[in-house]
Amino acid sequence: MKLIRFGSKDNEKPGVQLNDKTRLDVSGFVNEYDEDFFGDDGLARLETWLDKNADECPVIKEDVRLGSPLKRPSKIVCVGLNYAQHAAESGMPVPKEPVLFFKATSAIVGPNDDVIIPKGSEKTDWEVELAFVIGKKASYVTEENAMEHVAGYVLHNDYSEREYQLEREGQWVKGKSCDTFAPLGPYLVTKDEIKNPHDLNLWLKLNGEMMQNSSTSDFVFNIPKLVSYISEFMTLLPGDIVSTGTPFGVGLGLNPPKYLKPGDVVELGIDGLGTSKQHIKAFE
Amino acid sequence: MKLIRFGSKDNEKPGVQLNDKTRLDVSGFVNEYDEDFFGDDGLARLETWLDKNADECPVIKEDVRLGSPLKRPSKIVCVGLNYAQHAAESGMPVPKEPVLFFKATSAIVGPNDDVIIPKGSEKTDWEVELAFVIGKKASYVTEENAMEHVAGYVLHNDYSEREYQLEREGQWVKGKSCDTFAPLGPYLVTKDEIKNPHDLNLWLKLNGEMMQNSSTSDFVFNIPKLVSYISEFMTLLPGDIVSTGTPFGVGLGLNPPKYLKPGDVVELGIDGLGTSKQHIKAFE
Repeated sequence: MKLIRFGSKDNEKPGVQLNDKTRLDVSGFVNEYDEDFFGDDGLARLETWLDKNADECPVIKEDVRLGSPLKRPSKIVCVGLNYAQHAAESGMPVPKEPVLFFKATSAIVGPNDDVIIPKGSEKTDWEVELAFVIGKKASYVTEENAMEHVAGYVLHNDYSEREYQLEREGQWVKGKSCDTFAPLGPYLVTKDEIKNPHDLNLWLKLNGEMMQNSSTSDFVFNIPKLVSYISEFMTLLPGDIVSTGTPFGVGLGLNPPKYLKPGDVVELGIDGLGTSKQHIKAFE
Repeated sequence: MKLIRFGSKDNEKPGVQLNDKTRLDVSGFVNEYDEDFFGDDGLARLETWLDKNADECPVIKEDVRLGSPLKRPSKIVCVGLNYAQHAAESGMPVPKEPVLFFKATSAIVGPNDDVIIPKGSEKTDWEVELAFVIGKKASYVTEENAMEHVAGYVLHNDYSEREYQLEREGQWVKGKSCDTFAPLGPYLVTKDEIKNPHDLNLWLKLNGEMMQNSSTSDFVFNIPKLVSYISEFMTLLPGDIVSTGTPFGVGLGLNPPKYLKPGDVVELGIDGLGTSKQHIKAFE
């Protein structure tokens, strides 16, 4: 299945996108794709319900705004430097174990919403990432059992302000958490639809020019390892998001570095997870 | 007012504690102390309601378990090294601007709940902290207006696993986010009850021995500065928690360092914000 949320900001309703791209309103079955939904076997219940009721669901208009395909979760855990070539361009060694940081969930927006450059910022950068969504509470999970805890996958652009992240007294969270810095979607693709999450092309274009173009086969740490590792340090709750890091080709790594300006257009995609497009705006 | 939440874990109900220490169940008025409550002027509405209805509220039994006095918020923002003497004991310079990090909200527990040492951990440490709670959405707030965005204050023990925080590939969040690492309470004290939050004694005892004993007058950055500063990097939502850092006297700073063991008892308190007590347990 492909889950979507649609409608105006903060008033999104849940839907699904069918293989023929028809989008159905499923708010007759569930109010929200949230912790309760994922934790209470909501995906399986939704699938069963759709088998009987899809014909009765209202069809969503094509031009509707998409929100993030899941409600603001308890946390977004991000993995740093999870592609060897990106670690090199950032001037950092490949880590011996996963580097983790958080991104404020207040940064989440829809896949095609505008991204706002923070006041005075001169170093706003892009990062196409494969994110996965937790389906079942995870604490001290083994790598063998890790995939049981994954509900699905979603395209994420982990926007990052490099001055805030790297030049403002430590801890990356400062440069990762600005409003609009986490466009998610277009949809959450359930696990069964992606045969091998470790062999997906992912790419990002700035104003039509390819900036990032790589494959999740280059992960330093794969998804089972990440679930297991993170679950040693904290409990992952249903609906939580883990973003698996970005490949080579961010603005920070260019010589000279290149950052986003108002008017820029960023497009990105991952095999099977769709595409998204953000217009870059100044703070007003 | 003093807000409490009471009852079994994950089934807490909202209440208030009166000046004579009577505790009243106010679930007849509000379901949760959450983002909607704080953001919709809930404190003022609760006060008005209580004026008329306190006599009808059920009295809560004295031996009831207390939960965190507010529901899991969108984020816990922590301030590092906000007391000069603690920065020195941590071997770090006093920061030129606030150091920020996040703590997973899944770490929140009640004020007197057991604290669980993570599997294999040998460096679990204590940190008494004054936390404040956001009452009104804050984005690019000036220092002059900052206190309008604060709802009140709460006692917090920012438990920290120093190996995870400092020796496991960067980013402190790993050592701050373990389950049970954020006991909050006993109560949330509304802003009007604390005349000067920058002149409160705070202390922590380990097995009866005073380990931390300082004053918020030693803050490097005060609360208006913190609200204003953080709101440049992210939007603070109603119910969000900001923990203002810990004073001198953590286990990491002792020579040799001293960390928590199963069987230890930690007690802490802040003027006007009450006390809490945690029994340290091994992971089972």
